[in-house]
Amino acid sequence: MRLGALEAGGTKMVCAIGDETGKIFEQISIPTETPQITMPKLIQYFKEKEIDALGIGCFGPIDLDKKSPTYGYITSTPKIAWRNYNIVGAFEDALHIPVGFDTDVNGSCLGEATWGVLKGLDSGIYITIGTGVGVGVYSDGKLLHNMLHPEAGHILLAKHPEDNYEGKCPYHGCCFEGVAAGPAIEARWGKSGKELTDEEAVWEMEAFYIAQALMTYILTISPKRIILGGGVMHQLHLFPLIREKVKEMLNGYIQTKELDDLDTYIVPAGLNDNQGIMGCLQLAVLACEE
Amino acid sequence: MRLGALEAGGTKMVCAIGDETGKIFEQISIPTETPQITMPKLIQYFKEKEIDALGIGCFGPIDLDKKSPTYGYITSTPKIAWRNYNIVGAFEDALHIPVGFDTDVNGSCLGEATWGVLKGLDSGIYITIGTGVGVGVYSDGKLLHNMLHPEAGHILLAKHPEDNYEGKCPYHGCCFEGVAAGPAIEARWGKSGKELTDEEAVWEMEAFYIAQALMTYILTISPKRIILGGGVMHQLHLFPLIREKVKEMLNGYIQTKELDDLDTYIVPAGLNDNQGIMGCLQLAVLACEE
Repeated sequence: MRLGALEAGGTKMVCAIGDETGKIFEQISIPTETPQITMPKLIQYFKEKEIDALGIGCFGPIDLDKKSPTYGYITSTPKIAWRNYNIVGAFEDALHIPVGFDTDVNGSCLGEATWGVLKGLDSGIYITIGTGVGVGVYSDGKLLHNMLHPEAGHILLAKHPEDNYEGKCPYHGCCFEGVAAGPAIEARWGKSGKELTDEEAVWEMEAFYIAQALMTYILTISPKRIILGGGVMHQLHLFPLIREKVKEMLNGYIQTKELDDLDTYIVPAGLNDNQGIMGCLQLAVLACEE
Repeated sequence: MRLGALEAGGTKMVCAIGDETGKIFEQISIPTETPQITMPKLIQYFKEKEIDALGIGCFGPIDLDKKSPTYGYITSTPKIAWRNYNIVGAFEDALHIPVGFDTDVNGSCLGEATWGVLKGLDSGIYITIGTGVGVGVYSDGKLLHNMLHPEAGHILLAKHPEDNYEGKCPYHGCCFEGVAAGPAIEARWGKSGKELTDEEAVWEMEAFYIAQALMTYILTISPKRIILGGGVMHQLHLFPLIREKVKEMLNGYIQTKELDDLDTYIVPAGLNDNQGIMGCLQLAVLACEE
């Protein structure tokens, strides 16, 4: 099969052509402007490639409820031009092929579940910590949706005892994204994460927040593996710090073979930053199976 | 079908005989002592009733992984006599019938999903707040397990600004159970919840913690409805307080039709304290279907 993949992001649209084995033949990137400007370019690209199906991993929140009259819409996004935009409908009307649709982080999570470090497991989560925090959840062999889709980057966290920063999230202040995403690090310490690489206190606090969120995900979703990605996680020295704090915080309360080996439980992504676009290929595959 | 149901609790074993429609014909209760004393009584009861299958909702943690050599065991429980006890194996060996097995709160959640206030929904959670806090999760039409099973009563929470209590949980101090279960209320305020019914500050703080946990579950598991039960929730005036604080804390970040009506989203159990034993009947039904 010849499949189209679209990672629809707030600043750019990554488009690729590939197949059901995860192979990518070609890839381009188009800036995200308004639907009026951007959509015709995307449609033209995919039309010329004669694809059999399209998978979209999209910035959100989005409507994933197939029974809803607004299924396939981007909903309450701060990007006003895209608010209440029927992105799935636009592609279906123009291309007349099956269109798979999910959040961008669920897409990355699916890529890892199909070809990456979650392959062979029936559950796992994918967390991206960058300009924001997003979480994709794979549960019992499928992406988790239920009422909406996880927005687990916005859970509230207990404050680090030495943190006086009020939090960056306009909705929740000190939620996970509000205290631990890149902009929060910069606002708290007055420099970007990259300039703070050698500052121990910065990463001790960062690991404290990330570990606390991981503990919450472990106790609620009970995933068999946790992937951490995104710009902030390029600070690879965070991984051992996070593992140590997760162990401390769980404090032996639950015991599983997975938690016995945190080095293989809490890991970086396995697909070299292609997990998102490869996941979109798999969304296209799943759309054909429906 | 003639089905057996066992709610295995730390202080008592509730045994019932019923059918696949949720009807209960008879019910008895036996104190929980050691397996040597208690198990023969349970086995005798169910043997005499000539049941076709048995469903067990069990105190935990328990091993629910069918591929594990210790599937069907009670594992790291503080009740030492039951630690590493193969409860499913004991019934299978004695009764030679299918045995369904899950946590007690997952059992209650399943009862509500089959016959109660989650009926017709594909997802929901059941939270019991009493001497401890337990959470059962129904996701995409099934009980959620993944690595282990949810232990979501132990998530860490941000402290209420006026709470100086150090938390009651021996593992985590200020986790949800550590700050909000019955024993925490009593330790913090010096009286039991029942004696504090008219103290506004008590319930404002309690609602703060419960609402925060609910916000976390909404953002991670995204359930279509939330049930609150257990002794603490007999303080029915907590319901409107919790709904108000959930709304405040989410602060409009996600919008769904379910969240538009919190009176039907956050609700008491629907089966008059029979959700647990009825859920065990359904665990027996599911065991026959495997």
